[in-house]
Amino acid sequence: MIQVAVVGSERCDERHYRIAYEVGRLLAERGCVVVNGGLGGIMEASAAGAKLKGGLTVGIIPSDRKEDANQYIDIVIVTDMGHARNVIIAQSCDAMIAIGGGYGTISEMAIALKLGKKVVAIEPEVVLPGLEIAESPEEAVDKALEGLA
Amino acid sequence: MIQVAVVGSERCDERHYRIAYEVGRLLAERGCVVVNGGLGGIMEASAAGAKLKGGLTVGIIPSDRKEDANQYIDIVIVTDMGHARNVIIAQSCDAMIAIGGGYGTISEMAIALKLGKKVVAIEPEVVLPGLEIAESPEEAVDKALEGLA
Amino acid sequence: MIQVAVVGSERCDERHYRIAYEVGRLLAERGCVVVNGGLGGIMEASAAGAKLKGGLTVGIIPSDRKEDANQYIDIVIVTDMGHARNVIIAQSCDAMIAIGGGYGTISEMAIALKLGKKVVAIEPEVVLPGLEIAESPEEAVDKALEGLA
Amino acid sequence: MIQVAVVGSERCDERHYRIAYEVGRLLAERGCVVVNGGLGGIMEASAAGAKLKGGLTVGIIPSDRKEDANQYIDIVIVTDMGHARNVIIAQSCDAMIAIGGGYGTISEMAIALKLGKKVVAIEPEVVLPGLEIAESPEEAVDKALEGLA
Repeated sequence: MIQVAVVGSERCDERHYRIAYEVGRLLAERGCVVVNGGLGGIMEASAAGAKLKGGLTVGIIPSDRKEDANQYIDIVIVTDMGHARNVIIAQSCDAMIAIGGGYGTISEMAIALKLGKKVVAIEPEVVLPGLEIAESPEEAVDKALEGLA
Repeated sequence: MIQVAVVGSERCDERHYRIAYEVGRLLAERGCVVVNGGLGGIMEASAAGAKLKGGLTVGIIPSDRKEDANQYIDIVIVTDMGHARNVIIAQSCDAMIAIGGGYGTISEMAIALKLGKKVVAIEPEVVLPGLEIAESPEEAVDKALEGLA
Repeated sequence: MIQVAVVGSERCDERHYRIAYEVGRLLAERGCVVVNGGLGGIMEASAAGAKLKGGLTVGIIPSDRKEDANQYIDIVIVTDMGHARNVIIAQSCDAMIAIGGGYGTISEMAIALKLGKKVVAIEPEVVLPGLEIAESPEEAVDKALEGLA
Repeated sequence: MIQVAVVGSERCDERHYRIAYEVGRLLAERGCVVVNGGLGGIMEASAAGAKLKGGLTVGIIPSDRKEDANQYIDIVIVTDMGHARNVIIAQSCDAMIAIGGGYGTISEMAIALKLGKKVVAIEPEVVLPGLEIAESPEEAVDKALEGLA
């Protein structure tokens, strides 16, 4: 199965929340598994969007309690590894879509780019070399899946 | 979803392979997700058994390539963390079933027991305090799911 | 430098505390770096013993705050990885000495044994295959350093 | 002890190598422990500089063999965690100095900044919010230790 990471901040504004929801929905429609950090904000939105279309969602959480995952996560990976779980997300995806985001998101994009993966960002705070930019959820998903699905 | 870890050696005899296959099959019938280390031996067998019944399988692999997972794994978590991925398996399960197994399996059982989880073993090499023993796949699954499902 | 892990419970009785202190002292006298989990109990005792003789101590702590290390730790490795830090301890040592200990200690011994390292235990709760047993701090240190120093 | 991370690429030009060497030397003169990733390039240079002045060096290596550390590393932490070891470096330092660097360095800076640590960069490839820029090894070390030593 194609695993696409959707990353971004746990605290996001409503606009980014809706974008993430739409990205999740589109990924599920395209048959992809949504992988994220399992908590709130962008992580909750992208999982909720995916579940609307019956998609499968995986939350790789930083804490030690399965219950910390949001309600839209099907499979919970309990890392108890704090920020190091960002690296596992970057490694486990076939492509990554970032929406806004702060330092944590930057670390995820950097590792995914280092691993040679396609990373598409919507309204990133910082533009890293090799990052692709998308203006809409549709464009982000199209670019992320190019050559994959 | 209830996540049950099935752990054991990558190199196992045919007898243990068949036991693990049966454990995977029974877990899928009971609606549980099978979580394991994603490689060969017990990990392959339990995933193969689960897929026979349309179950969902998660492989938390030690290496850095998604392709290293066996063909019966649906969701691949790429840790690139070697033996530390054993800890993630122990943390991500609601209960653990161990079949035979060597040092790696002992480390997984020890962490799961430390976390207060039910750990059921079939023909363990070493008996740890608090470990429950089962004589058959059926008994192992029944004991593991007691109070969970 | 030769790095010897001293592992055991955070909560230990006074007898094991004194044994760990003595092990730390002897390792420092032999010029070894003491590596442990950086917290209390056996970890504090072995570090305190090493510092008495001017030894160097490394604490690989499970939490996210350098300040959580005990006062006898020189170098603090902040893993924020909970039980997965046990694996880093097992990997970073040239030999391991375990004193009493529970599940966490068992996981550390199992990984070190899997890696082919010498593991010497004083009064272990569980005897793993390949484990060497020592009756005294002197014997433990002698056995651990055999072939190393 | 004050632990300062020196991060940058394993493959660096001679100019950056000399800067890292100088940073390591200055940190040792100021009594700081140099923490880095333990391999070549910036990691080797900063450790070599520190050893010239009798400083203590810690290498947090990504692989599973203590021997992979460069010859200037005193204490080797064997993570076998690939890129996730970057996170441990960011967590274990009191301040970070980055010299040039690619994606791995960006991930280290991002996590250290997220943790609220002082991060000083010499000729960074990407400027992250909150990053301090230095023009010379002296300025980098002065800025990194401001308020610490």
